[in-house]
Amino acid sequence: MRRIKIVLAYDGTNYHGWQVQPGMQTVQSVVESVISGMEGRAVRVTASGRTDAGVHALAQVAAFELENPIPPSNLQKAINRLLPRDIRILRVEETAPDFHPRYHATAKTYEYRIWRGEIASPFERLYFHHHPYPLNVEAIRAAAPILEGEHDFTAFAASDERDELGRSKVRTIFSSRAELAGERLIYRVRGSGFLKHMVRNVAGVLLEIGKGNLSEDDLRSRFEPGCGIRSGPAAPARGLFLVSVEY
Amino acid sequence: MRRIKIVLAYDGTNYHGWQVQPGMQTVQSVVESVISGMEGRAVRVTASGRTDAGVHALAQVAAFELENPIPPSNLQKAINRLLPRDIRILRVEETAPDFHPRYHATAKTYEYRIWRGEIASPFERLYFHHHPYPLNVEAIRAAAPILEGEHDFTAFAASDERDELGRSKVRTIFSSRAELAGERLIYRVRGSGFLKHMVRNVAGVLLEIGKGNLSEDDLRSRFEPGCGIRSGPAAPARGLFLVSVEY
Repeated sequence: MRRIKIVLAYDGTNYHGWQVQPGMQTVQSVVESVISGMEGRAVRVTASGRTDAGVHALAQVAAFELENPIPPSNLQKAINRLLPRDIRILRVEETAPDFHPRYHATAKTYEYRIWRGEIASPFERLYFHHHPYPLNVEAIRAAAPILEGEHDFTAFAASDERDELGRSKVRTIFSSRAELAGERLIYRVRGSGFLKHMVRNVAGVLLEIGKGNLSEDDLRSRFEPGCGIRSGPAAPARGLFLVSVEY
Repeated sequence: MRRIKIVLAYDGTNYHGWQVQPGMQTVQSVVESVISGMEGRAVRVTASGRTDAGVHALAQVAAFELENPIPPSNLQKAINRLLPRDIRILRVEETAPDFHPRYHATAKTYEYRIWRGEIASPFERLYFHHHPYPLNVEAIRAAAPILEGEHDFTAFAASDERDELGRSKVRTIFSSRAELAGERLIYRVRGSGFLKHMVRNVAGVLLEIGKGNLSEDDLRSRFEPGCGIRSGPAAPARGLFLVSVEY
């Protein structure tokens, strides 16, 4: 049995996230159905992590077992031919039998994209959170690096995971920066790992700082032990991209 | 009664073209329904010309009559608030009572976009014709300017308009150029006016030249009087953009 590693890009607009859910169209279910069809048996495809409904990926990493002896480049073409055009396999390679896309990942990078212009381009409407209202971009740029380092991110976890006992919510953020490029405000964060909804909750807090509703100290206080604060609403899914996974 | 000129961008993917058609969702019908709702009576919105089903516009121009005294910038905001996000009004101004977006246009520019890379980005899949197969780009670049000048474009008209008598199919093309930019082959044409399906038929012929199926002489012969040749299949709608309209 071969172990195959794939790198894939997808437009998450039409999917209920990565992970298989009964009765829902998900990226995983579509990819699994194509590969299972080629292999003639059910193949389980494991990714580096879930992405939420509507979240995009520039380079998600996944892996699966294959008996079919087809060479990687032919395999890539065959899968792409069968996949819908909003999911593309960018690379295929044979990997170590024990390679695990999630447990072996050493870093992940996400990007959150905010469109600042008065009018959002119809051609980018699915790939930006449109926020044409006043925003102190300098305050956001100054606050973003506060997330760097090792912190307890409980206050940024999804509400259904916040009170879960036993699993550490400590993560290390290697870099956390926001930059304005023309009408696009791009927040980019690279870290050891991320909790469910964490990046969208961080983007939501940074937006509140930009609106003047929260301060840098409010952000710092979220990392304090026993902080009972619940993050504000997560920023919309359409602005979030999984950029890369490192091993 | 005021005469209002608007410039609008739209993603044509989900529309059966610009023009109202019974039972079909079209850009015109959506825009008219929003403006009619604001005005409290049926308002007819006239554009510089139709775009086909699936064709996009970066800056279509249209005009309509309005009694409502709302200032142009507020009108723009109000319409954009009510329109779906794949149609955006970029500019609104009050214009001369006799302004006609079609009859007064002096030039139009279209762009046809071809994606040359092996893998088409999921995020641009709706805005390019994907052609990853061998193509002699130099031959296309050399042939494109042959269209410049005044020609009889009967051989590039839509099949249902080709044999129509009495209406001139002569048009003047000011510039016609193809350029490769990375994985994108962009054909851009500016002219006095265009027949139905003309740009997609031209793009189709240029693609045939790139594949080596047609020569520059074949292209020239289509302008000869009495040329009975029917253009090959039109290039797909998703690659075509109306770029601008000049007055």
